[in-house]
Amino acid sequence: MQISDHLEKLIDSLSRFPGIGKRTAARLAWHLVSTDKSFAQQLVQSITAASDAIRPCSLCNMLSESDPCPICSAADREQDSICIVQNSADVQIIENMNEYRGQYFVLGHLLSPIDGIGPEEIKSEMMIRRIDQLGPREVILAIKPSAEGEATMHYIWEILKDRNIIITRLSTGLPFGGDLEYSSSSTIKSAWQRRYGV
Amino acid sequence: MQISDHLEKLIDSLSRFPGIGKRTAARLAWHLVSTDKSFAQQLVQSITAASDAIRPCSLCNMLSESDPCPICSAADREQDSICIVQNSADVQIIENMNEYRGQYFVLGHLLSPIDGIGPEEIKSEMMIRRIDQLGPREVILAIKPSAEGEATMHYIWEILKDRNIIITRLSTGLPFGGDLEYSSSSTIKSAWQRRYGV
Repeated sequence: MQISDHLEKLIDSLSRFPGIGKRTAARLAWHLVSTDKSFAQQLVQSITAASDAIRPCSLCNMLSESDPCPICSAADREQDSICIVQNSADVQIIENMNEYRGQYFVLGHLLSPIDGIGPEEIKSEMMIRRIDQLGPREVILAIKPSAEGEATMHYIWEILKDRNIIITRLSTGLPFGGDLEYSSSSTIKSAWQRRYGV
Repeated sequence: MQISDHLEKLIDSLSRFPGIGKRTAARLAWHLVSTDKSFAQQLVQSITAASDAIRPCSLCNMLSESDPCPICSAADREQDSICIVQNSADVQIIENMNEYRGQYFVLGHLLSPIDGIGPEEIKSEMMIRRIDQLGPREVILAIKPSAEGEATMHYIWEILKDRNIIITRLSTGLPFGGDLEYSSSSTIKSAWQRRYGV
């Protein structure tokens, strides 16, 4: 017997999140209707507020409440490097590292011809415009090492190679705390090839 | 640099779900603001609709859109057994098995004196009322085998033991596909003690 249509619809909505399966969605939905209404109300409010307030920055394409975003408009950030990432969330991750004080550009996607994601979808013209505007010494590709990531990095390198800019990418290898046993052979191969003296 | 206050609030709201850590909440929040607005709108709608529509059934305490719930009000369900579960979600799980055609009662919690959850919180009076109303032949305790679950099952058994009702509980043992290696010693011990001829 199906218990509730509204609940089924809620489960369907929640399972549209990437990485949330039907079972987790059901657990979340039941929790939402089981706890006191203030939780659901507060969640609805924060979804609506965030969804209404957040737009892409016209300079770096990062999702932000202001345009330009807080990073592009900060006076105290260095202008001589630009870090290129896939998603806005990646910016927060790099910021949390407290290591980097330069600029960003958010592609929004990685190149994936098979999914119809080409140079236009990854905002390559906007990226070139931003790079030429800033004239950085270094472009850091903080993009994940995967088929799409490698294709994207190669594509950006092709664009920038004649521009007298240092182009770097994040190191590949074993993650801290990662067992060799659970690492893919490409991770181990990369760690092997990039081994360094101790 | 903190990117967005609204986003931080959304992450806080989402991480109030049990089993959703800060990192998953951040991933969900970024997805919500990254995809087109229709997703956020639809999610808000389905949360509001489900949260407004769903109330506990006055007979079995299950969360439902109608009172009595579809199961308590179904004419074709057997009256001679009642299955006692912790949560409304458990009812759906047992229904999906397509094996059971009796009644339910939802406790809402398990006994846990340390968390201040006593007989009143697990609706024991309402449960006794429902059991006496139905006069079932069997009460099935579909409650998880844990400290709280065992205490709750023992408490219900104490209440019902003089009522001439068969009281059963779900079997304990190895889950299908479960490696011995990854099973707790209490699971293995229970599976050992309850072993049966093949």
